[in-house]
Amino acid sequence: MREVAIIGVGMTRFGELWNQSLRDIFTEAALKAIDDAGVDHIDSMYIGSMSPGLYVGQEHIGSMLADYLGVTPVPASRVESACASGSVALRQAIFEVASGYSDIVLAGGVEKMNDGEDTTYILATAADQEYEAYFGVTFPGLYAMIARAHMHRYGTTGEQLAAVAVKNHANGYRNPNAQFRMKITKETVLNSTMVADPLHLFDCSPVTDGGAAAIVVPLEMADKLKGQPVKIIATAQASDTIALHSRSDLTTVSSIGKAAEKAYKMAGLTPDKIDLAEVHDCFTIAEICAYEELGFAEKGKGGAAAESGLTALDGKIPVNTSGGLKSKGHPVGATGIAQIAEIVAQLRGEAGERQVKNARIGLTQNMGGSGGSCTVHILEAM
Amino acid sequence: MREVAIIGVGMTRFGELWNQSLRDIFTEAALKAIDDAGVDHIDSMYIGSMSPGLYVGQEHIGSMLADYLGVTPVPASRVESACASGSVALRQAIFEVASGYSDIVLAGGVEKMNDGEDTTYILATAADQEYEAYFGVTFPGLYAMIARAHMHRYGTTGEQLAAVAVKNHANGYRNPNAQFRMKITKETVLNSTMVADPLHLFDCSPVTDGGAAAIVVPLEMADKLKGQPVKIIATAQASDTIALHSRSDLTTVSSIGKAAEKAYKMAGLTPDKIDLAEVHDCFTIAEICAYEELGFAEKGKGGAAAESGLTALDGKIPVNTSGGLKSKGHPVGATGIAQIAEIVAQLRGEAGERQVKNARIGLTQNMGGSGGSCTVHILEAM
Repeated sequence: MREVAIIGVGMTRFGELWNQSLRDIFTEAALKAIDDAGVDHIDSMYIGSMSPGLYVGQEHIGSMLADYLGVTPVPASRVESACASGSVALRQAIFEVASGYSDIVLAGGVEKMNDGEDTTYILATAADQEYEAYFGVTFPGLYAMIARAHMHRYGTTGEQLAAVAVKNHANGYRNPNAQFRMKITKETVLNSTMVADPLHLFDCSPVTDGGAAAIVVPLEMADKLKGQPVKIIATAQASDTIALHSRSDLTTVSSIGKAAEKAYKMAGLTPDKIDLAEVHDCFTIAEICAYEELGFAEKGKGGAAAESGLTALDGKIPVNTSGGLKSKGHPVGATGIAQIAEIVAQLRGEAGERQVKNARIGLTQNMGGSGGSCTVHILEAM
Repeated sequence: MREVAIIGVGMTRFGELWNQSLRDIFTEAALKAIDDAGVDHIDSMYIGSMSPGLYVGQEHIGSMLADYLGVTPVPASRVESACASGSVALRQAIFEVASGYSDIVLAGGVEKMNDGEDTTYILATAADQEYEAYFGVTFPGLYAMIARAHMHRYGTTGEQLAAVAVKNHANGYRNPNAQFRMKITKETVLNSTMVADPLHLFDCSPVTDGGAAAIVVPLEMADKLKGQPVKIIATAQASDTIALHSRSDLTTVSSIGKAAEKAYKMAGLTPDKIDLAEVHDCFTIAEICAYEELGFAEKGKGGAAAESGLTALDGKIPVNTSGGLKSKGHPVGATGIAQIAEIVAQLRGEAGERQVKNARIGLTQNMGGSGGSCTVHILEAM
């Protein structure tokens, strides 16, 4: 494989973007990434988006967004793996560049969720429609079952779940692009409305509009371009049963572990070498599972790790310095690329008030559904 | 780029498959391809599907189909570019293998259209929702405008359009997997219900359920496997404005020409070296435009070419020997891979009653929307 780097990133503010359509949002992010990279053209583009068909009645967004971005006849395709769509788009850009077929490929992600008629239904199409959603289960319900099993087996507490939300809001407070820029306390979480026991409102990521983009180039081209490059040293992806009930163990999201194992092997690294990470905290319990599967905490000790400060901005391994999905927001198709944008900013030393000192190696973990798909990427400063 | 080959193909019967769900259909095609290839595992898979979200309320089909196929934790992602989704999935498999990241990648396509509540609405999400579909235009309407402009400028006739349908039905009659296995005459077409003037019912491809799959491997591995390999000598893709009204010339589907130009260059070939082709005849006029853009006929002479027998099964360059989208059926996400399955069968000499003699080089052209996206692949017998 030809080695590849990210040479530019861009994202919109995340939130309720009532004045911007899906095409406006994507184009803003793409133009920022192109400008950041300092390239005068792109050879190809991929867009991660979970469900523009159900959210805004528009499929074929590859063509639409190439058109609106003004880059036709450049090849443009959409990639979908529910909430992991963005990072899967990145993988396609990596493969296209690594193969030598193209040199400058844009990987973007976008979702316009607030226009959706029934976002709970739409998100549930990432679960097994026939065997889960049809019987009324929703995503808060699925993750609540994971949380309840984790509590039962390992003694994980509601306070530990809340600690994840408190940390991520503290980080998001420092991120100008975050949807919910306010500090919260454990009490904020524990006193908020119960959505699906044991998950309160503040254990859940919000409904968000937003876009993000990254420019992938061959490593040997990176030095000649304006943007400060960050090297991609691993890309990995794994699948699992789409239905939660088909798994042998509710407390283990095995696709995270499988993807992480492959990524660490590809990078030639162990988890202790990771300086910081962006993980998929669609619900607080998901971040706790991620700690365990990524090797940041022992199995069953993810809750304690969250409470200990290990993953705080000044901890040993800061996680979700961007605010994560919880505070920054979760426009599902864009999330995987927004994670990349945060790691690139950190590895470049451009993360402002939330900068992690001496950040050299960063990891992203992006997940679809209740873990039916998962990607892990590892990036290295240059 | 590492050279790649297709080592196995499989498809379901195309038609109204009321007794098979989307997962049944995909799995049948995938298992056939795996068996044809003679591989005992796959490293990764891509599924082209336009709109499972709107058709059957299910996104995240990568995870679902990996699960149902029994191949978890293999990476599995969906790719979408409207009716070109299948061939775009093939491109991702090609890039992943060509890069050296993986060795055995399945590229599939599936669509379950007959379960859709309103297929005309769903298909129109491949057009520009805000600026075309919202005002009531449908796909027959868009292609009718292309046809009317072609007639006006070049004198193309309804009889010439009908000749495409007659030829494709004559071919589909010989294809056991085709949805409509009956011979028709020009009168059948011209006397059928007018759908969107000048397009009659028999100028339009049908609504279809179906799946198809292909196995991509490195060329150097191909000799060691059971399946008779076919080499992929070109893959190309282009985009155009999603909205028909944004184009400078209604009679030219420029994404076909742009993709073809790139594909011929990559293969080092001229159009006269192509022995047979599968082209995207979603409407008869689309096949006529394809002749012109692929270099099989001069600009404006596509209609005459159709009438002349040039592209008949015993013509100089047989087109749509499978029956094409018109007679074989058009389960949108599966079409691009089904085209590949036909070319592989022909280049292997396994096409039975519709076998083209001395077929060495075959081309596929697969298109999304009214040409907002298009791919061209060229395959060579080994």
